Amino acid sequence: MAHTTAILLEVFIIFAAAQVGGTIARWIRLPDVVGQIVIGCIIGPSVLGWITPSEPLEVLSEIGVVLLLFAVGLETRLEDVKRVGGSAFAVGVIGVIVPFVCGTFWAHSIGPDWPRSLFVAAAFVATSAGITASVLKELGVLRRTESRVILGAAVIDDILAMLLLGVVVAIQAGGSLRVGRLLAVAAEAIGFVLVVGWLGTLLMRRGSKWLDRARNPMSPLLAVLVLCLGLAWVATRFGLAAIIGAFLAGMIASETRQRVQLEEQMQPLLALLTPFFFVLTGAKVELAKLASGEALWLLLIATLLALVTKLVGGWLGALRLGPRSALMVGVGMIPRGEVGIVVAALGLSAGVFGDLIYAVIIAMSLLTSIIAPPFLAMLLKTGTGDRGSGIGNGVEKARPGSGAP
Amino acid sequence: MAHTTAILLEVFIIFAAAQVGGTIARWIRLPDVVGQIVIGCIIGPSVLGWITPSEPLEVLSEIGVVLLLFAVGLETRLEDVKRVGGSAFAVGVIGVIVPFVCGTFWAHSIGPDWPRSLFVAAAFVATSAGITASVLKELGVLRRTESRVILGAAVIDDILAMLLLGVVVAIQAGGSLRVGRLLAVAAEAIGFVLVVGWLGTLLMRRGSKWLDRARNPMSPLLAVLVLCLGLAWVATRFGLAAIIGAFLAGMIASETRQRVQLEEQMQPLLALLTPFFFVLTGAKVELAKLASGEALWLLLIATLLALVTKLVGGWLGALRLGPRSALMVGVGMIPRGEVGIVVAALGLSAGVFGDLIYAVIIAMSLLTSIIAPPFLAMLLKTGTGDRGSGIGNGVEKARPGSGAP
Repeated sequence: MAHTTAILLEVFIIFAAAQVGGTIARWIRLPDVVGQIVIGCIIGPSVLGWITPSEPLEVLSEIGVVLLLFAVGLETRLEDVKRVGGSAFAVGVIGVIVPFVCGTFWAHSIGPDWPRSLFVAAAFVATSAGITASVLKELGVLRRTESRVILGAAVIDDILAMLLLGVVVAIQAGGSLRVGRLLAVAAEAIGFVLVVGWLGTLLMRRGSKWLDRARNPMSPLLAVLVLCLGLAWVATRFGLAAIIGAFLAGMIASETRQRVQLEEQMQPLLALLTPFFFVLTGAKVELAKLASGEALWLLLIATLLALVTKLVGGWLGALRLGPRSALMVGVGMIPRGEVGIVVAALGLSAGVFGDLIYAVIIAMSLLTSIIAPPFLAMLLKTGTGDRGSGIGNGVEKARPGSGAP
Repeated sequence: MAHTTAILLEVFIIFAAAQVGGTIARWIRLPDVVGQIVIGCIIGPSVLGWITPSEPLEVLSEIGVVLLLFAVGLETRLEDVKRVGGSAFAVGVIGVIVPFVCGTFWAHSIGPDWPRSLFVAAAFVATSAGITASVLKELGVLRRTESRVILGAAVIDDILAMLLLGVVVAIQAGGSLRVGRLLAVAAEAIGFVLVVGWLGTLLMRRGSKWLDRARNPMSPLLAVLVLCLGLAWVATRFGLAAIIGAFLAGMIASETRQRVQLEEQMQPLLALLTPFFFVLTGAKVELAKLASGEALWLLLIATLLALVTKLVGGWLGALRLGPRSALMVGVGMIPRGEVGIVVAALGLSAGVFGDLIYAVIIAMSLLTSIIAPPFLAMLLKTGTGDRGSGIGNGVEKARPGSGAP
């Protein structure tokens, strides 16, 4: 009881702070999420100490990002993803190889032996789909070709990052690299994505008529939320991030006739729950550990490396879309966020590296998440691409003029 | 990471089970919440053990019931509550005295000394606003006089229950009963409710124009959710339940011009989060402890006592509304739920009583929550009262024909 009350205060603080951070960010023309991450860092243990990441808050944050990726999936049709499949694949693969190779050499150059360096480099690999997707959604450009390439590449990226983590953990543990086992894991993950995406979409396209018969207007939402939470969990069973399952569930739900209604009903859910993800992401930076010249120097290099390698990797992969689009894709792939944090936590607890590299990796992950969105927004706003085909923010589209009665 | 994944599975199970339970309940013409509580008991540790109440789930459940009472407040205007103030006060006071006195004598008759008996009796006192409010909302009768009396009485009830708990804890601890201190606590709580309800409503009525200027259609929702979470927390600082603060926040928000839009936007939030409250309530019953003749006998008597005393208390308090309305109010006050559970947990941890009485109180709280809603629904459906003035379920009202595009 008493503890739940204390958490209730933190829930209030996080939610209110997110509104403040988002509003300030909008004033200075930055995406909302940047404001929410920065304010998370300020109210977190590093500065004010008003909130402390805890399991209940982590769960709220996880549900928030799961719903976010579900909503993003809801605006993504399988047909459209298929059309950019080749580019997305190239971006995903090259965007993993370049940061991994460069990250390994950099890590080795600052001290650790080769196995440990591979581990550190794994933190440079995976794009945070949550942060980029949120910026794309905020700008209402989810239907642009570049957005689809980014989202498709983020899924491939996550599969590769998971495999890579398996490899580096095995190498680090000194165990033999069981290639057969790794290939089986990879096949499972890829199979999960393909089968669920393809079969689910097919079934929903044919069978969503029964949703029309529901008398309660909430029923379609309840049904797809069951699907969303279910696939989010199943994805984790295949070693993938929960958000990949949620994204697939959203893509499946986008085939229903209630798609527009669902997009509209998702807005209040996102409004309430996604701030927990972004604020908590910011709260995890440990500024105290970075308060030395050496640490700041390491952080600067690591961040630059993370920025440049992913930008180049994404750019190379997306070159066939033209140089400007390739640049957008490259910038869109920069944010690291949660996966980098997971790798860092694993490495710290396994004793692969110490507090300093841990803090640097966390801060690097967050800096990439703060630096990339404004550039992405700038590129997309001034882009000469197919802006006309952007559908606008889901809310504004679905409910024009709903602000005042 | 691994733990969050495990919780994600429980989140999925709870949400999916709630849909199954709610659907079955509707088939056999019972309120949704009854199905959700019963299925919670089945999937909980007592039977299948698929879920275990844990802190993250408690927080989700708390947020769910806070949002529920906020939405109920949103459909309640201060003016209307004032009109039934006298009846609500009578129902609240008599509805606390009768169960407390009878409960004390019963508890003493089964063994405990007088101080302990007073403690046990405190568990018979407080109405679960969440469960009754949910039934009233589901039936779309929140604007009926009886509903307003019930909700007003539930607020008064909560204040009295809190005071009573203070008294019995003090008596039990053998400390001197500091009457002055208790009166100060009471004055604070009553002052909080009156000042927030009156001042907040007044300010919102005059000043809600700025909400019109928001360009983002989510802004009014975000603003009132900050208010809701904030007042929920402040209420706990005044020793009241968080849901009382949320209810007041909803009443304040009902004075805005965006009320209809807000009611509509709350629906997806309630759909996602309230199931956690009801399923977890059910999951807390410990059936194993009740598997003896003595326990079942105790439970039977305790439940009958809880039913009859609250029914009579509520009925007496509401008699001026006519016998049929008084009966509805009496039935509406029966569900105990969370407060009974809190008292039981306090008593167990303080060693006031043992496992058996603990399990009996929990089961009694839940049985009253399962038994009352069907009768309430029956009475309200066949009632000859002002059904025409009922506004119908918020969703159906706000979005006619939104089922199919």
